Amino acid sequence: MNFDIHAKDTHCNARAGSITTEHGLIETPIFMPVGTAGSVKAVHQRELTDDIQAHIILGNTYHLYLRPGLDVLNKAGGLHQFNSWQKPILTDSGGYQVYSLSGTRKIKEEGVTFKSHIDGSTHHFSPEYVMDIQRIIGADIIMAFDECTPYPCEFSYARKSMEMTHRWLKRCCDRFDSTSPEYGYSQTLFPIVQGSTFKDLRKQSAEVIASFEREGNAIGGLSVGEPAELMYEMTELVCGILPAHKPRYLMGVGTPANILEAIALGIDMFDCVMPTRNARNGMLFTTQGIINIKNEKWKKDFSPIDEMLGGYVSTAYSKAYLRHLVISGEYLAAQIASVHNLTFYLWLVKQARQQIIAGNYAAWKNKMVQQVMQRL
Amino acid sequence: MNFDIHAKDTHCNARAGSITTEHGLIETPIFMPVGTAGSVKAVHQRELTDDIQAHIILGNTYHLYLRPGLDVLNKAGGLHQFNSWQKPILTDSGGYQVYSLSGTRKIKEEGVTFKSHIDGSTHHFSPEYVMDIQRIIGADIIMAFDECTPYPCEFSYARKSMEMTHRWLKRCCDRFDSTSPEYGYSQTLFPIVQGSTFKDLRKQSAEVIASFEREGNAIGGLSVGEPAELMYEMTELVCGILPAHKPRYLMGVGTPANILEAIALGIDMFDCVMPTRNARNGMLFTTQGIINIKNEKWKKDFSPIDEMLGGYVSTAYSKAYLRHLVISGEYLAAQIASVHNLTFYLWLVKQARQQIIAGNYAAWKNKMVQQVMQRL
Repeated sequence: MNFDIHAKDTHCNARAGSITTEHGLIETPIFMPVGTAGSVKAVHQRELTDDIQAHIILGNTYHLYLRPGLDVLNKAGGLHQFNSWQKPILTDSGGYQVYSLSGTRKIKEEGVTFKSHIDGSTHHFSPEYVMDIQRIIGADIIMAFDECTPYPCEFSYARKSMEMTHRWLKRCCDRFDSTSPEYGYSQTLFPIVQGSTFKDLRKQSAEVIASFEREGNAIGGLSVGEPAELMYEMTELVCGILPAHKPRYLMGVGTPANILEAIALGIDMFDCVMPTRNARNGMLFTTQGIINIKNEKWKKDFSPIDEMLGGYVSTAYSKAYLRHLVISGEYLAAQIASVHNLTFYLWLVKQARQQIIAGNYAAWKNKMVQQVMQRL
Repeated sequence: MNFDIHAKDTHCNARAGSITTEHGLIETPIFMPVGTAGSVKAVHQRELTDDIQAHIILGNTYHLYLRPGLDVLNKAGGLHQFNSWQKPILTDSGGYQVYSLSGTRKIKEEGVTFKSHIDGSTHHFSPEYVMDIQRIIGADIIMAFDECTPYPCEFSYARKSMEMTHRWLKRCCDRFDSTSPEYGYSQTLFPIVQGSTFKDLRKQSAEVIASFEREGNAIGGLSVGEPAELMYEMTELVCGILPAHKPRYLMGVGTPANILEAIALGIDMFDCVMPTRNARNGMLFTTQGIINIKNEKWKKDFSPIDEMLGGYVSTAYSKAYLRHLVISGEYLAAQIASVHNLTFYLWLVKQARQQIIAGNYAAWKNKMVQQVMQRL
């Protein structure tokens, strides 16, 4: 994996770059649509490439491990072959899902024992096994196994958890570095900074993570309920420590405003279920602001969903039609809204990149945050 | 509306033709995907044109009347404008849904009073009002308001019901002929033959319906639970009476075998929810036979869904991936299976048309029925 920085903004820490993988180029800053179980919900793969213009998508280790399972994925030749997505894939480590979805789980030094949310069966994830799983899934970028602490979190718990995450990282790296890719293309491992919302823990964790000298670094444990200002504060602090010549990935973030603010702090990569999950509830992100399409005011609004954004889905269908589909519980509602929202997210980071290259990011960002976050 | 017959099979009553409407040409025999509430479930409009190659889709008067409602549809400029489908549309009369979906309904000579399945509100459909509604929806082909009898059905009830359907038809025609289209393009009205599974009633009904001399004729009240042989027998009898130079539409039919057999009897138009409804349950119709994709045998079958059929959806995704999506309850499962099944149905009638033109329909049909109905 290579990371090249093409431009830096002079008024903030935003940068425009590109990550080269064996499955293609990722222009940064980038938003990565979430394809939990090997499918970005309600979106065809060709829509990801042709309409949304995604450069990379996510897969979830926890979900893919449980279903379709490692035997199927391995026999298929990895996730790219299995789901017919030939561009880059990043897999999370499954840590977050083990804590959030699994009813009962026991976290020990050795690893985590948990019950499947599907059938209640018992499973064990160790840092080593999670590396093996992600080797089999075959993502281009794989994530270290960590504990994502909730918010709020006691200092003592956050410290102990962070220290274990660091020890687990050592085990992840040892396993990753002593094994080879399964399918002939290279993979890279990103470690994850933790430390909850405590400055000294975040500083300590960023230093430890940086010392591992991996090809890219991630920030986890944010966007879990804390105020946005606290998230920005932690992100700024950590970005000041993580090496500037490597990509920085802020996990699970966020709203359009969150993304634009974090880009200004030096973040290059984002993922979030918000554009797809909210789409399924009728919430649209548009170039003009946020729309709750269920509102009566859209009932007879026959204008396109987002003419400025362009593209088939956002211009062929009207707001009134989409409202009707959402209220009628039609599949097509989720399909239209998901493609639209993701197209908007990818448009937003592409605009951000162009503004960074033009040297105008900071000013544009302040205006854009107002524009895209207003309720229509 | 014009109907031209281009070829007739010499060994059976199959014919290849074309219906000209102001929204475009419909090559017959044709299968019409069902877009109940103004959307063919889980399918984008561009997929209907580009992938499935549909010539015409259906809308349901009952559903569209309740949601989005006539004010929205009229303000939009009709259903074509509302759902961005620019090819022909046929609407059923709502009769079938009033009987099957509405909890309580009272059928009288004047019309039907029923309660909405959505909110329990009370509504009244008369033959005249159903014409007015379909004028507002703006379908190219609209259907007469009829009573669809269940199977089995007492002779006396079937006779009385049929006679009322005939009287309603007179009222439909009077209203239709004394009103004008709402949106500048012409509409045509098809009457519906009833008579349950009684030969003399079907004969009588076909004669009455033919005497109205509309531009096309439909056969209703079949495919409601009766044995297939009985459906073919009634269809053959009715096709012998309905004028040969006008299109014949067999409503709500059916399996690939039903369609191929009915084409041989002289039917030109079909609609059915089967390809989309069964898709959502993981049942695939393919060029090689029927697949229950949930079966364990497809778990590691990484071959395309239907290589012979061609097209993005049927060749880009594997059986194993689709199985995984169905079992995981992913939206994309319904999307893939629906586009695939409809692509197959449209392929089947296109093949039938070519065989009729080649003068080889009867022999091809007997082979094809075996092939496409076998369980894989």
